[in-house]
Amino acid sequence: MIGLGLIGGSLVRAAAGAGRAVWGASTSEVDADAAKADGYDVTTDVDEALARAADRDAVVVLAVPLTRVDDVLGKVADRAPECLLTDVTSVKSPVLDSVRRFVPSARYVGGHPMAGTAESGWRAGDAALFGGAAWVACVEEDTDLAAWAEVAGLALDLGAHVVPLPAASHDEAVARISHLPHLLAAVLAAVGAQGGPLAMSLAAGSYTDGTRVAGSRPELVRAMTEGNRDALLPVLDEALGKLGAARGSLASTGGLAATVNAGHEGAQALAQARAARLAGVRVSLTAPDAREGLIALGERGGRITAIAGDTAVGEVC
Amino acid sequence: MIGLGLIGGSLVRAAAGAGRAVWGASTSEVDADAAKADGYDVTTDVDEALARAADRDAVVVLAVPLTRVDDVLGKVADRAPECLLTDVTSVKSPVLDSVRRFVPSARYVGGHPMAGTAESGWRAGDAALFGGAAWVACVEEDTDLAAWAEVAGLALDLGAHVVPLPAASHDEAVARISHLPHLLAAVLAAVGAQGGPLAMSLAAGSYTDGTRVAGSRPELVRAMTEGNRDALLPVLDEALGKLGAARGSLASTGGLAATVNAGHEGAQALAQARAARLAGVRVSLTAPDAREGLIALGERGGRITAIAGDTAVGEVC
Repeated sequence: MIGLGLIGGSLVRAAAGAGRAVWGASTSEVDADAAKADGYDVTTDVDEALARAADRDAVVVLAVPLTRVDDVLGKVADRAPECLLTDVTSVKSPVLDSVRRFVPSARYVGGHPMAGTAESGWRAGDAALFGGAAWVACVEEDTDLAAWAEVAGLALDLGAHVVPLPAASHDEAVARISHLPHLLAAVLAAVGAQGGPLAMSLAAGSYTDGTRVAGSRPELVRAMTEGNRDALLPVLDEALGKLGAARGSLASTGGLAATVNAGHEGAQALAQARAARLAGVRVSLTAPDAREGLIALGERGGRITAIAGDTAVGEVC
Repeated sequence: MIGLGLIGGSLVRAAAGAGRAVWGASTSEVDADAAKADGYDVTTDVDEALARAADRDAVVVLAVPLTRVDDVLGKVADRAPECLLTDVTSVKSPVLDSVRRFVPSARYVGGHPMAGTAESGWRAGDAALFGGAAWVACVEEDTDLAAWAEVAGLALDLGAHVVPLPAASHDEAVARISHLPHLLAAVLAAVGAQGGPLAMSLAAGSYTDGTRVAGSRPELVRAMTEGNRDALLPVLDEALGKLGAARGSLASTGGLAATVNAGHEGAQALAQARAARLAGVRVSLTAPDAREGLIALGERGGRITAIAGDTAVGEVC
């Protein structure tokens, strides 16, 4: 495990709890010392941890911020260039591009456990963080499915459900359902605060719901939104287009039916997706079209809940 | 009480519970029959209920949708033109304009109890709906403060806290903290749903929080947003400006610091407003500057929690 913050620290604890041999490195002496004090096998020497991974053919998990990924990949290229590599970064295409550039020989499977808290650092970690969470494990055209199954198996061991997706599909979806919500919450909180104490005093559920994530740590919000720039821009344009259309309609005819009705249908789409769940989907990982089968499952909103032999077992919600 | 839906029906129950003599009218036979079956003194003859109010010098409360207000004011002008009149509509300037046009002789005090549920109709009513809620009671330059104290006293009797404000300040504030949140939620839900089952499957807290009110009944959302057109348009332009600036910055420099930081500060402004509370503010209703004192209290985010003699007692949060 390279990186021992909230996610890396939770992973170390959860993996050890699942009976796996796990060691880690962090350049943060605070996190490394705290992890050592808790009895874990960690170092501040990333090169040493990577050399040991190469020696024992271990899975290397990058749990560092996106801005540190290229640096660490340079070390991976030096010390463990053939390793089975995954990561837990919240955007996937930029990391995939970096891996192809810096460590093309690695067997890489991008990952994103969709879990977290507002806290950070080793002390905030929790072995139970991934229980029931969606964990995207990327499937590209050239993905080695044996490597994919190892990464998916790690996520399943830690209690997560695996969503197989290409990096581009992941980034587009999270732009819609995570990064745009953060930006709209920030805009709403800024416009609301312009109303002063009166507006704050009258604020009720619609405002507190709509601004809740504006209270997240700015560094984290910037990291995920700025890191997903290419996928976020067109989604932001969709939102600007719809909000501009609402403005135009209100100014001209005075009507907001199209905006309000489309929003109501969108809310129903979420409720319906959550109500419907089709169990017992199976994808053979040795079939010639296994990659397409996995991706189709993910694109339909499915999750894999077990891997039995060469078969991924899942459900579509 | 003219109108026996969720708010009117809750008011009838709460007023009766507070020991007041109350009678009502609704042109909806369904609501009128249900209220009668529950033992209340109601009719489908609005003219008759108004004539009785004029005869007994009762407070007339309009609890009809904004689109019905002008019709009912025509009846008030015929049957009870000198009455003490209030309403519970979610926008205040348009109703004030209509009252000045149709019933200039009425002693009118605009009202807005900021309480509600997703339900509608008499059956959804609840005498406890107003407990602890903010109830805006409008103060204009020409407001008769004896009439204002009667309306504020009614709201206090039903368990609400009274926020004294001019109609224009009310409408501007609710545009920011209620109507804009509803439009942003609608836009987010529509953009999110464009991502199909995959996006719905990955949606977590930021999306469900941000879209929750998009599930509200479209008629209600349209009534409040379209009815507050004049105050909502400039607020919508502020949001479009800030979202457009975020888009421009992301596209050009790749940075979102200004957007994210302003949102974080806005979220802190709400938290701070809720933490601070200054008790024991008093406004004499017979002082020459009583109207200014009441409005200043409301604009500072204050609420009146009691009226003792000629003194309104409140707190500023």
